Amino acid sequence: MQPTGAAFDAPPLHAGDVAARVRGYLVGLQARITDAIEGVEGRVEEGGARFRSDAWAKPPGEPLQGDGITRILEGGRVFERAGCGFSHVRGPRLPPSATAHRPELAGAPFEAMGVSLVFHPRNPYVPTVHMNVRMIAAGHPGAAPVCWFGGGMDLTPIYGFDEDAVHFHRSCRAALAAFGADKYPRFKAWCEQRGVGGIFFDDFSEPGFDASLAMMQSVGDAFLGAYLPIVERRQGLPYGEREREFQLYRRGRYVEFNLVWDRGTHFGLQSGGRTESILLSMPPLAAWAYQREDPAGSPEAELTARFLQRRDWIEAAEGHQL
Amino acid sequence: MQPTGAAFDAPPLHAGDVAARVRGYLVGLQARITDAIEGVEGRVEEGGARFRSDAWAKPPGEPLQGDGITRILEGGRVFERAGCGFSHVRGPRLPPSATAHRPELAGAPFEAMGVSLVFHPRNPYVPTVHMNVRMIAAGHPGAAPVCWFGGGMDLTPIYGFDEDAVHFHRSCRAALAAFGADKYPRFKAWCEQRGVGGIFFDDFSEPGFDASLAMMQSVGDAFLGAYLPIVERRQGLPYGEREREFQLYRRGRYVEFNLVWDRGTHFGLQSGGRTESILLSMPPLAAWAYQREDPAGSPEAELTARFLQRRDWIEAAEGHQL
Repeated sequence: MQPTGAAFDAPPLHAGDVAARVRGYLVGLQARITDAIEGVEGRVEEGGARFRSDAWAKPPGEPLQGDGITRILEGGRVFERAGCGFSHVRGPRLPPSATAHRPELAGAPFEAMGVSLVFHPRNPYVPTVHMNVRMIAAGHPGAAPVCWFGGGMDLTPIYGFDEDAVHFHRSCRAALAAFGADKYPRFKAWCEQRGVGGIFFDDFSEPGFDASLAMMQSVGDAFLGAYLPIVERRQGLPYGEREREFQLYRRGRYVEFNLVWDRGTHFGLQSGGRTESILLSMPPLAAWAYQREDPAGSPEAELTARFLQRRDWIEAAEGHQL
Repeated sequence: MQPTGAAFDAPPLHAGDVAARVRGYLVGLQARITDAIEGVEGRVEEGGARFRSDAWAKPPGEPLQGDGITRILEGGRVFERAGCGFSHVRGPRLPPSATAHRPELAGAPFEAMGVSLVFHPRNPYVPTVHMNVRMIAAGHPGAAPVCWFGGGMDLTPIYGFDEDAVHFHRSCRAALAAFGADKYPRFKAWCEQRGVGGIFFDDFSEPGFDASLAMMQSVGDAFLGAYLPIVERRQGLPYGEREREFQLYRRGRYVEFNLVWDRGTHFGLQSGGRTESILLSMPPLAAWAYQREDPAGSPEAELTARFLQRRDWIEAAEGHQL
């Protein structure tokens, strides 16, 4: 690594093989996912939508340097809004949200690259999904940089189905199995705030660079298999005004979570990230209502009573021979 | 003040006259404002909506103690959603967002009371408005507590009118005139991020308790006169799908601002405030679209080009004999 001055518009921390290898994987992952979603949308003549692709680069002189590819599909047949972004940025000082666990790197130059997506389906029976994988590298000038990985995926149903929650969690567990049996329960516990959960990990570097990268890739690679079967299963279910209204209300809560609590969003905003890319996660339309109350036993009340609870979905299913 | 232990579910910092005086003002202000809004809504038989009133108290044992009155009107003739909350809370430790300017009070027991409102009109020609007035008192056990005041109001048009911006700013200036000619320009500069701005002040205690309280009251009292004439002027203007769509898009940006950047929201969330009350500010419905572009010269483009700019509205108007 070249020592760099305060201005830090200079070479990336990991020029060469490592950065190129991770970047190559991430750009490919974005393309695979967006291609598959376009496949689900189907033929344009039949109302299938396509992603817009917006390649951007930060102008010289901005505190954060870097580039990315923002891909967004709006107004589709299956997806009302689907955003999937790749970004690769570097900055002079790691923002506070990223150094909570690494005080020795506070204020160090950093480099971050990742793919992040949130898909908002049109049919309220198809769950919203979020996935993110990222690598961060940081180091004070002259010292060897430290790399760590983060990511995960979570599923947010509007109307819950046990079968979908179980399938999603099984896919997550399978993606992590090769990296130690402790990973799925640990990363599941770390990711419980949103929907039926999923997995989330951060600051991950324990088994060394190669194994950590392999784990991140395994999670990224598992996304389509975890989500698309659920989309296929639910997208044809009929729905009406009642389900649409509940969907818009739940999206309001999702917006609240993303903007107020999500660490990735705050990292992006604090580090001067690109607002339009960060707001890729927003739904096309959302509603707020004061203290909505659904009758006990209604499918809307079941969402909270049964699905938005910490639950071992896989064990519950296997216990009940689902 | 009684020294209190860590649990701090004990007597308020300002038991007695001071708290009762400020509380009385605030509860009355909330009632005057909601009554006036119901007046604008008109007769129930003609579609005028009424506020629901929800008096709440924090259960014993929660970190934040206190009570409040949440008032919300939904689905009205003129206002699609109008939330106006009074709250009076005390907690064992002032949250970080409140102590940025007062490091000596970090972690001190505190008491906060205020009225906060956001009104979302139905007609896109009627601007969204936000107003907030509050008093905070804090002090380490055994030391004399420190009181300070904050608040302000700002106007967020969807479609801008010079006349409205000028009237709103003149009302703000008039509310502050008795407290020194420096106040309006200073507090205007402090409040520029949202809409055509307005005034905002915080950590205010310079002229002593009585004069600071009087200034807060003058701002609270000025709200209806600053806003209602604009509502009366615009609520009958005809609009269609195009204006509605732009309104929903602008509301999406408003949500982003409130949840990501607004210090009051963060104070509430960090201090364990009541989520439902905090989310009073959310619109009934909002939309997001990627990089919306409006043709130069269109009324939608004019909003950004002319109205969402730092501007001395009063001087511009008097210069042009508006």
